Amino acid sequence: MDEHSLLSLIRRVKDGDLDENELVRQIRAMPFRDLGEVKFDTHRALRKGFGEIVYCPGKSDSQIESIASALAGTEDNILFSRATAHQYGIVRSHLQDAVFHEKARIIGAKRKDYPACEGLTVITAGSSDVPVAEEAAVTAEYMGCTVERLYDVGVAGLHRLLAHVDVLQRSRAIVAVAGMEGALPSVVGGLVSCPVVAVPTSTGYGANLGGIAPLLTMLNSCASGVSVMNIDNGLGAGYFAALVVRQSK
Amino acid sequence: MDEHSLLSLIRRVKDGDLDENELVRQIRAMPFRDLGEVKFDTHRALRKGFGEIVYCPGKSDSQIESIASALAGTEDNILFSRATAHQYGIVRSHLQDAVFHEKARIIGAKRKDYPACEGLTVITAGSSDVPVAEEAAVTAEYMGCTVERLYDVGVAGLHRLLAHVDVLQRSRAIVAVAGMEGALPSVVGGLVSCPVVAVPTSTGYGANLGGIAPLLTMLNSCASGVSVMNIDNGLGAGYFAALVVRQSK
Amino acid sequence: MDEHSLLSLIRRVKDGDLDENELVRQIRAMPFRDLGEVKFDTHRALRKGFGEIVYCPGKSDSQIESIASALAGTEDNILFSRATAHQYGIVRSHLQDAVFHEKARIIGAKRKDYPACEGLTVITAGSSDVPVAEEAAVTAEYMGCTVERLYDVGVAGLHRLLAHVDVLQRSRAIVAVAGMEGALPSVVGGLVSCPVVAVPTSTGYGANLGGIAPLLTMLNSCASGVSVMNIDNGLGAGYFAALVVRQSK
Amino acid sequence: MDEHSLLSLIRRVKDGDLDENELVRQIRAMPFRDLGEVKFDTHRALRKGFGEIVYCPGKSDSQIESIASALAGTEDNILFSRATAHQYGIVRSHLQDAVFHEKARIIGAKRKDYPACEGLTVITAGSSDVPVAEEAAVTAEYMGCTVERLYDVGVAGLHRLLAHVDVLQRSRAIVAVAGMEGALPSVVGGLVSCPVVAVPTSTGYGANLGGIAPLLTMLNSCASGVSVMNIDNGLGAGYFAALVVRQSK
Amino acid sequence: MDEHSLLSLIRRVKDGDLDENELVRQIRAMPFRDLGEVKFDTHRALRKGFGEIVYCPGKSDSQIESIASALAGTEDNILFSRATAHQYGIVRSHLQDAVFHEKARIIGAKRKDYPACEGLTVITAGSSDVPVAEEAAVTAEYMGCTVERLYDVGVAGLHRLLAHVDVLQRSRAIVAVAGMEGALPSVVGGLVSCPVVAVPTSTGYGANLGGIAPLLTMLNSCASGVSVMNIDNGLGAGYFAALVVRQSK
Amino acid sequence: MDEHSLLSLIRRVKDGDLDENELVRQIRAMPFRDLGEVKFDTHRALRKGFGEIVYCPGKSDSQIESIASALAGTEDNILFSRATAHQYGIVRSHLQDAVFHEKARIIGAKRKDYPACEGLTVITAGSSDVPVAEEAAVTAEYMGCTVERLYDVGVAGLHRLLAHVDVLQRSRAIVAVAGMEGALPSVVGGLVSCPVVAVPTSTGYGANLGGIAPLLTMLNSCASGVSVMNIDNGLGAGYFAALVVRQSK
Amino acid sequence: MDEHSLLSLIRRVKDGDLDENELVRQIRAMPFRDLGEVKFDTHRALRKGFGEIVYCPGKSDSQIESIASALAGTEDNILFSRATAHQYGIVRSHLQDAVFHEKARIIGAKRKDYPACEGLTVITAGSSDVPVAEEAAVTAEYMGCTVERLYDVGVAGLHRLLAHVDVLQRSRAIVAVAGMEGALPSVVGGLVSCPVVAVPTSTGYGANLGGIAPLLTMLNSCASGVSVMNIDNGLGAGYFAALVVRQSK
Amino acid sequence: MDEHSLLSLIRRVKDGDLDENELVRQIRAMPFRDLGEVKFDTHRALRKGFGEIVYCPGKSDSQIESIASALAGTEDNILFSRATAHQYGIVRSHLQDAVFHEKARIIGAKRKDYPACEGLTVITAGSSDVPVAEEAAVTAEYMGCTVERLYDVGVAGLHRLLAHVDVLQRSRAIVAVAGMEGALPSVVGGLVSCPVVAVPTSTGYGANLGGIAPLLTMLNSCASGVSVMNIDNGLGAGYFAALVVRQSK
Repeated sequence: MDEHSLLSLIRRVKDGDLDENELVRQIRAMPFRDLGEVKFDTHRALRKGFGEIVYCPGKSDSQIESIASALAGTEDNILFSRATAHQYGIVRSHLQDAVFHEKARIIGAKRKDYPACEGLTVITAGSSDVPVAEEAAVTAEYMGCTVERLYDVGVAGLHRLLAHVDVLQRSRAIVAVAGMEGALPSVVGGLVSCPVVAVPTSTGYGANLGGIAPLLTMLNSCASGVSVMNIDNGLGAGYFAALVVRQSK
Repeated sequence: MDEHSLLSLIRRVKDGDLDENELVRQIRAMPFRDLGEVKFDTHRALRKGFGEIVYCPGKSDSQIESIASALAGTEDNILFSRATAHQYGIVRSHLQDAVFHEKARIIGAKRKDYPACEGLTVITAGSSDVPVAEEAAVTAEYMGCTVERLYDVGVAGLHRLLAHVDVLQRSRAIVAVAGMEGALPSVVGGLVSCPVVAVPTSTGYGANLGGIAPLLTMLNSCASGVSVMNIDNGLGAGYFAALVVRQSK
Repeated sequence: MDEHSLLSLIRRVKDGDLDENELVRQIRAMPFRDLGEVKFDTHRALRKGFGEIVYCPGKSDSQIESIASALAGTEDNILFSRATAHQYGIVRSHLQDAVFHEKARIIGAKRKDYPACEGLTVITAGSSDVPVAEEAAVTAEYMGCTVERLYDVGVAGLHRLLAHVDVLQRSRAIVAVAGMEGALPSVVGGLVSCPVVAVPTSTGYGANLGGIAPLLTMLNSCASGVSVMNIDNGLGAGYFAALVVRQSK
Repeated sequence: MDEHSLLSLIRRVKDGDLDENELVRQIRAMPFRDLGEVKFDTHRALRKGFGEIVYCPGKSDSQIESIASALAGTEDNILFSRATAHQYGIVRSHLQDAVFHEKARIIGAKRKDYPACEGLTVITAGSSDVPVAEEAAVTAEYMGCTVERLYDVGVAGLHRLLAHVDVLQRSRAIVAVAGMEGALPSVVGGLVSCPVVAVPTSTGYGANLGGIAPLLTMLNSCASGVSVMNIDNGLGAGYFAALVVRQSK
Repeated sequence: MDEHSLLSLIRRVKDGDLDENELVRQIRAMPFRDLGEVKFDTHRALRKGFGEIVYCPGKSDSQIESIASALAGTEDNILFSRATAHQYGIVRSHLQDAVFHEKARIIGAKRKDYPACEGLTVITAGSSDVPVAEEAAVTAEYMGCTVERLYDVGVAGLHRLLAHVDVLQRSRAIVAVAGMEGALPSVVGGLVSCPVVAVPTSTGYGANLGGIAPLLTMLNSCASGVSVMNIDNGLGAGYFAALVVRQSK
Repeated sequence: MDEHSLLSLIRRVKDGDLDENELVRQIRAMPFRDLGEVKFDTHRALRKGFGEIVYCPGKSDSQIESIASALAGTEDNILFSRATAHQYGIVRSHLQDAVFHEKARIIGAKRKDYPACEGLTVITAGSSDVPVAEEAAVTAEYMGCTVERLYDVGVAGLHRLLAHVDVLQRSRAIVAVAGMEGALPSVVGGLVSCPVVAVPTSTGYGANLGGIAPLLTMLNSCASGVSVMNIDNGLGAGYFAALVVRQSK
Repeated sequence: MDEHSLLSLIRRVKDGDLDENELVRQIRAMPFRDLGEVKFDTHRALRKGFGEIVYCPGKSDSQIESIASALAGTEDNILFSRATAHQYGIVRSHLQDAVFHEKARIIGAKRKDYPACEGLTVITAGSSDVPVAEEAAVTAEYMGCTVERLYDVGVAGLHRLLAHVDVLQRSRAIVAVAGMEGALPSVVGGLVSCPVVAVPTSTGYGANLGGIAPLLTMLNSCASGVSVMNIDNGLGAGYFAALVVRQSK
Repeated sequence: MDEHSLLSLIRRVKDGDLDENELVRQIRAMPFRDLGEVKFDTHRALRKGFGEIVYCPGKSDSQIESIASALAGTEDNILFSRATAHQYGIVRSHLQDAVFHEKARIIGAKRKDYPACEGLTVITAGSSDVPVAEEAAVTAEYMGCTVERLYDVGVAGLHRLLAHVDVLQRSRAIVAVAGMEGALPSVVGGLVSCPVVAVPTSTGYGANLGGIAPLLTMLNSCASGVSVMNIDNGLGAGYFAALVVRQSK
């Protein structure tokens, strides 16, 4: 329920079209819809400025189904993250407009047009980091952002990165995704004046420790203007960067 | 050397007032000034949009002295972070306008007026987190931000936080500082639609592991719109949040 | 061996019926054997107040079979934890009254009515935490407790939790189950005056470290009245909380 | 904001006394403010059942002073934990009735008589664990408990523990404090039917890892009915166990 | 080549039956037989007092085959550890006398009678620790020891252990195997005067960390006379304890 | 951009052929673009002295295909590391001269003859370390090195190693590969005067921690002249050692 | 109270010199003497075969004093470990025969002659490991062992170790102490047929992690016949090895 | 013992001059003694190509004194690492030619002229990394190298590094020292074709974990040609790099 629908409910009470007790009842129920084990945070769009994001891993088919079914009438954008093709099948039977972004492992349904905003760049150190980057990019696109992608520009071949310094320097927010040693955000952070959101990935082996190595690298970045997301958390990075870009001049 | 000074040098060449080889020489030397062991990144203001920040720990008195002396003529703001009163004595003899922000452990010299910008809120879970929060706040202030401080509003007494939900909801960026279990950013992240920069602190004992516990908490935050800084890195958080606020509408 | 038997042994030595070296030998082992025979040689139910709990993982089919067979005549309640459907097949052929609680992964046989006790609430932060919560709830139910379940009330959507504050505040013990960053017990601990048993789950990814992140969060909880169980240890939490509730007024 | 106030607000809109946009604004903040004002705007003692506990480390003298001064008129019990003799000096100038429990490192002021309750036993594995145990015991005493102390009964000399099995078996809650390998709670947990609150201490060296070793031991306890506190967290254990005992029959 | 065969070679030179250069050649080749990627330490029996032990995991079928083939003529005992039934098939086609100890995951061929020695006891905390215990027991048996097995006597049911205190107290060496929290060796170490070899197992979950928890427990044991093996290293423990028992009076 | 081009740009401004703002813009990006265009816009072989190495894990079939296709015309050597037989099928359809080194898991195409160089020895502690060692050896061979292999010479049977001390002492670089406790490089480092490149492997179990144990061993080596690669990083070690040998006298 | 005194007490009852109830009373009190916070395990000598060992760190002066005073009349050997010179002062005022072994940080009082036993060798990798080695050696000496010391024979200079291979090969137990990478026990374990007790020390820096590196090295030793003690635990190693040697032929 | 001596021993047995059992005894110890006497009984300089390096921390004054005294007559270069001014006082009284390199914390005595070799460059990311870098540089200088120093060229100000790319590209070995996130070696490794020896430092705070963060970064470097030393191990890096440069063309 967004601000607009709430206002029209109130007007209906004022106009005598709706019983005042009924409004109280609806407001009480407003913050979330209870599906038993799952409680929807439908108040979220109002509070956070974006619709529902469903994290798929660990959810049974029936849980996915009941969620998809409950979201059928939603007027805001919907995202299912870390989704499989199988789960897409379930979701789609309830949300016919749902699209599967395979690389990003996101099922999305676009139902609302957020104001377009520019200046978000998503870069990766290697080609194995692309799925996480796509998760970031697709998330931000559903939030209204135009995203510039710049993949495989890791620091071991610095010229690949430097060749694109113009794109970086005119960005309003950069999501920098890297596995292995995760040095990319430090180098990028030294080149630009906008916020850089660093995402470590679990790409690597041995002392990479499933992404702990690049995570530590990024947290210790000697460049200023760099903050860090959880390992492989492309969605969080895209969401965060979109918040920054949305409110930029 | 900012864009303006560069332009006037070029004009002097064009006007014949400056030898073209001299301009080449100055440009070559431009990016940094070499002090032997320390190389100043004077190109930084141009590239990053803010002056020099000197990290004090591990620097000898003579290193601090030569840096302070070299910065004497700078026209941008100067920050020395994690500074001691003793180091302030050294700095001040070269930079008479330097001020010591004791709680924040920052020595600052304000030489340039950045455009004022509003909407940055710094909050802490406990009173022991205040030094880190002050480091964030003072840094942002030197970058032109007006900072609202909201300290000791940890989640164990939730009403303290909820009483200030208005301040939080009208912010453009929030720096949330917490030690112990570090749950504050998750709760705040669930309440607001602006970016939240989480800073774990080393406040705590035992399984706090010097801040690792709240660091992990924040990285795993189930709230969207939260990114994380290194443990106790108030300066980084203030810098990052200031970047966000500076470019906000 | 109690004081009485010791005295008669000594008398037998005195009377020449027992060799003095034999008495020395018996005394030598006494501090343990004594207590062993007298206090320990009773079964677990007497000492601990509840029947047998069998941890299934790592047990071969024949081990499960011989345990089930051995328990056939037991008059106390029986639990097999972390059980599979396959193991249920084996158990059931020996214990016809055994029931399989699938979500909780528990096979249970109810053979004794423990005194009913109320006031135990089991809550989860997300829907992926439900299996661990169910393990806690079902365990407590076999110990005589009536359990109130409150699932998917994590701190990122605080109103979902706050809507149920009444239930929480009238509980005698709360089991709070959470993965990701595990902040739920801290917030709940700040709202209630009864003991809160926190259970971290391995739900999450990256820096969640298989549940280490929420485990650390809970151990460092700034709220008082919170103690912690091992990762995913729903059974232990349900058992502990049931002990608390059972002896409550 | 309860249901009643909401209804009257709606009526005021209906009657034209309140602008409809103002009602939307109030509803928008409602899920939190509402519960905030009604349920939270009471003090901690009401919600948690015990007065203020001040954690001293990291607090400056002036912070301690202002807290002590603010607490002067409190009618509930007051605890300052991890306090030094120096801090006691400061506190006492504002709270003349404050007492310093040196071993427990607690400053306490007893201003309220909680109902007496029995059945709490505090045990330690070694004599170096006594400060943590005393912190637990003194905390519980301020909450109205009579505490039985049983120190230096570690598992390497099992008979020391077994000699006191009667005390253990008639307890309603046991706080078991141990450093080194921390095996005590497992052994105790196997002997009793009441809840055991395990506290690892940082006593030890090498692979003890500052208490991580006994912490892990306790979390993995094969005995049921054992929950765990943070390393050295005697206060938390005493508080938790007192909650259990207070509500026992 | 054992001392005896060497002596007869030397005698053959002395008697003129063997060319002295041939003896030099044999001695030069003596320490090991080179199978390309695998180099046999045939000197081992002489130096270490026991034959070849082959660690199977990570070895290809052809590697296993070439090793088995090379060992065909060996006159000392042979052990293949962590072997599968499939590998047993391969080994047996070359070593017809090989036996598969399934629980212990050991393939053994007994070709030499070591002097019988008594006093080795192998105990486990739970039934899931049996495979590791069997690995220890079978290893020691091939080294000539008579092994007393005492399984499932963990500390949570102390009487099970105490009932067997006689067996423990008359042992010359005890291998104590435990997963979960690994408290068994500490308790046993407090009861006996012989060396206790502690073996942590990976039995457990969550904060057990694949056996790190009981490993730390055992390393920090407050009982004297306890040393520790790697996680799940039954073979090493059996071997070590057999060395102790073999040289005991 | 070198000094010369900069001078001519300046002259063009002076001559009015170039707008002064354009020069500022070019200088602004210069520190990076400059070096980028001049030094980096050459291919890797020029800068690093060897062709392309493709890390296969995590790459989709189509990614492998497009890379193989793009490399078809390359005149330098090509390596695909950690490749599977399946990937070899894909690669070979584009690079008919590609060879699959199965043990080393490397697909290689030899298109250039590097100057032959001698003195590289690759040794392993056990036979399970061979795949990593082969990766090192094959990599070095493609870089022109003749490689001496010495496998299964771990420190527990020291004579196996000492028998080959001549080979070791005449090497120009040694790659020492070891899992388990990883002591081999320390012992070798004490015997030779050439650089030793240590590679820990994930061979082992329990407290081996997937190779962390030998990694730490090697980093702490008390022998001088030992440096360390990531766990299982045979390719990196072979590459590094080849660099050393290639430039040796 | 040893077996002998017990026997004479029994005889006194038999002879009518002692009341039988008095004997019961003495036996009941036998296992330990209660000093309030400290409980003496006086039964220990009977059970474990050696007197009291007092771990000094963390004990207050008054605790040390009361322990020393209580031990004044003991007839078995006494050890205070990790003692300071200051603590020696306190101990000596109660135990005039106490000696301070400064390097070993042990205060010892020799009051009983254990049967002499030979064959214990204590070796170290470096000279910084000597204090831990001395702790082992002195402990074993108080238990009746003759100890051969062999210091600074680390693997980086292998010939130093090999020069003493005779001493090693005729030992009945070896304590091998090493910091840095801790490779010594593996090499020694490969050379001898007696049990090797490995002790990691915290000597080193960086990735030594306070002794964790050599601890892991030793746990993963590829040599058989090696078991491990806690970091810096010389006392435990000496004790364990003495047990082995004492019962050797 | 070489082949020749072995043959004469055998002949002596054949001739009756040597007992055959004595020959067996000598052969038994042979694999080690043999190589020992022939190859090891030479001093370190012969085997390793450089004189004695004494690691000072943890050594007592008298240990330092006896070492210095013993080295007085040495004709090779001598280094004392991690030395204090106080220790320099002791050393100098025995070695009058000893020099104290304060920044490098090295005491050195130059007694031999190693052949001069060029091409070693030592770089640091920050000015706090200088002590470790100096340790590397001074060590290499005592081994005959001319060292080029390039300090404070970290990746956050990339142009500082790129300005010196010429120096880097003409090096034969580079020691790259960095704390914080340790990204420098990756970037440098991508620019040059010579071996890069990476040294992490403990410079930093929080999630730097005393140098573990840059250590992991460097181990996971995506650039080829990079190997890693222990944290803060400047000496090892300088030594290793000097070995490389010494044998370069």
